[in-house]
Amino acid sequence: MCIKLVIFILSDSSEFRDNLKLAYSAAVSRRQQFLIRCLGGSTEKKNFNFQSIRMQSVMSSGPSLEAESVSILTSIIPGLESTKHKGQAGKIAVVGGCREYTGAPYFSAISALKIGADLSHVFCTKDAAPVIKSYSPELIVHPILEESYSIRDDEKSSISAKVIAEVEKWMERFDCLVVGPGLGRDPFLLDCVSHIMKHARERNVPMVIDGDGLYLVTNCLDLVSGYPLAVLTPNVNEYKRLVQKVLSSEVNDENGTDQLLSLAKGIGGVTILRKGKSDFVSDGKTACAVSIYGSPRRCGGQGDILSGSVAVFLSWARQCAAKGEVSMNPTILGCVAGSALLRYAASMAFDKKKRSTLTGDIIECLGRSLQEICPV
Amino acid sequence: MCIKLVIFILSDSSEFRDNLKLAYSAAVSRRQQFLIRCLGGSTEKKNFNFQSIRMQSVMSSGPSLEAESVSILTSIIPGLESTKHKGQAGKIAVVGGCREYTGAPYFSAISALKIGADLSHVFCTKDAAPVIKSYSPELIVHPILEESYSIRDDEKSSISAKVIAEVEKWMERFDCLVVGPGLGRDPFLLDCVSHIMKHARERNVPMVIDGDGLYLVTNCLDLVSGYPLAVLTPNVNEYKRLVQKVLSSEVNDENGTDQLLSLAKGIGGVTILRKGKSDFVSDGKTACAVSIYGSPRRCGGQGDILSGSVAVFLSWARQCAAKGEVSMNPTILGCVAGSALLRYAASMAFDKKKRSTLTGDIIECLGRSLQEICPV
Repeated sequence: MCIKLVIFILSDSSEFRDNLKLAYSAAVSRRQQFLIRCLGGSTEKKNFNFQSIRMQSVMSSGPSLEAESVSILTSIIPGLESTKHKGQAGKIAVVGGCREYTGAPYFSAISALKIGADLSHVFCTKDAAPVIKSYSPELIVHPILEESYSIRDDEKSSISAKVIAEVEKWMERFDCLVVGPGLGRDPFLLDCVSHIMKHARERNVPMVIDGDGLYLVTNCLDLVSGYPLAVLTPNVNEYKRLVQKVLSSEVNDENGTDQLLSLAKGIGGVTILRKGKSDFVSDGKTACAVSIYGSPRRCGGQGDILSGSVAVFLSWARQCAAKGEVSMNPTILGCVAGSALLRYAASMAFDKKKRSTLTGDIIECLGRSLQEICPV
Repeated sequence: MCIKLVIFILSDSSEFRDNLKLAYSAAVSRRQQFLIRCLGGSTEKKNFNFQSIRMQSVMSSGPSLEAESVSILTSIIPGLESTKHKGQAGKIAVVGGCREYTGAPYFSAISALKIGADLSHVFCTKDAAPVIKSYSPELIVHPILEESYSIRDDEKSSISAKVIAEVEKWMERFDCLVVGPGLGRDPFLLDCVSHIMKHARERNVPMVIDGDGLYLVTNCLDLVSGYPLAVLTPNVNEYKRLVQKVLSSEVNDENGTDQLLSLAKGIGGVTILRKGKSDFVSDGKTACAVSIYGSPRRCGGQGDILSGSVAVFLSWARQCAAKGEVSMNPTILGCVAGSALLRYAASMAFDKKKRSTLTGDIIECLGRSLQEICPV
């Protein structure tokens, strides 16, 4: 794996501040700050006093878990070559979107495109489809899922078979599924989605599971247990429920890393991205953290950007792994890259929009963030 | 409560004008003007002759009712900390939106997010939902209300029970309800909304009531009477109807403050924000005014920005009150802050768009207005 060594020598804090003031471009300044943050610093700090800032190997050794997210991002992002054809940069599908929720699957699917995937599909209910389509003509939206309220009991088995067959037809074209954004909790719909997940697994299609997909999985661990291509991205409450279910205990933050390792191991080596002030990632064998400063805004929808991003990065990391360019678990690399990019873009959006930053503003910063971290 | 003392010394009017001309940034200049307006001045005034401009205590004493909106805003706006999680900056729900009206609930709900709430829901009719959803993926829109035209008489009681149960399921998650934007006047729908308001009251969820919600409340005062967490935001006509109903008299502008105090007292201590050239606020015990200059444009929808804003500020003021950081009635603080911010944003939008200023333009200025008044 190719690791870039980046070295900045900053003689003292006043010089650094002058440097910032005189920075010939915002992009360069932002990139420096990002590299600093990757090493645990923060732009919130008033006094910078680094003699040297050095990027180390991919994963820090010793007590620090901090992942080298910039190195990981630059390692897995594929080259843009004119010989490539549509689809080679990634084909993602989001399973989610129901009568109640339409924003979440849109955020996830459009984020995948904004990062660089070629095609982004959404499989949602018939009610949700026109709305999701109206958000953007860039997405391919399939109105095929059904909720209990719209069908009779005697139709259920035939409709279920039809839904599953329809998704199955597309399955092998996808590099990754995102299951859960805006899925809702309708029992009939969740039953169909369980079958879709089984098919994805049979065909070795990776899955990023978030939101109501985690509700489904927590109640039926067999759907992902022992599947190394499954990534779970729980927030505080979702993580708590997983720990209770799998480890029959409460969340223990004093020994958080060990508990995360046990949890991932307990679900047979799936990868877990535990979201929080820092994001922690583990596949049961190794664990790392992404602590770079993002944004203090907690508007709903940021988790959907993450799920779409992880799906793309995970696919790219798998391509690298297939070529022998990376040796680490691609699901971990995908999680670290997705987490770092979201934090970077959120920071950029917050710089501009401050307290009124919304998820759409962060999505608009994904492309520029990527370009600043890893210029084309 | 922390009150900031802001002092400007301006030696004479020509110096002040030069100062304005040479202002090193529009933001600083706008902020100065805002502070002046808060003290009853106006940028429309041709001759400034202030020797000193001083912020006094939270509410001016003596004959002037003018509230110290900047101090109030800066006092109740919560800090942005990376340790916080989604929801802690506020979860708002708007009950409104029917076949006829979809803009009003959108304006109210999106304003809440733009000010800094984390989650904003809309409970509307099935017809209104896809349209409101399509305005923005940032909102969570529940298509659950029904109007008489779409249901049979024999279904009414079962549908009513279902609607109420569905909203009830969410109720305790909300920091504030906004009842009324685009609600319409369908009797069946208003009956369901009455039940929703009763449930909110049982659970001590604050309510901001505007538009057709005020029509409902004026015809059934028991819904809010004696509930200190209710805020009514009537315009000229809605205020007139309230005065006629509660005080059995006509609006008396010569003794407007006393009449407002009597009205708020007459409805058992609810808080009333009487909208007009100046906005007046009272909870029956105290009264204050917000007279800072906004915009001369009277395009429809500005009241919806106000209702969404008051909901957020009221929630934040309640958080401050719970921590002992403010001693005044949080509903009054919320009204003053909402009124001041709307006026500031409307002024900013009008500066740019003049006669073509629309409600959406003002919403786009909410974030920048907040940032100028109370920088992150």
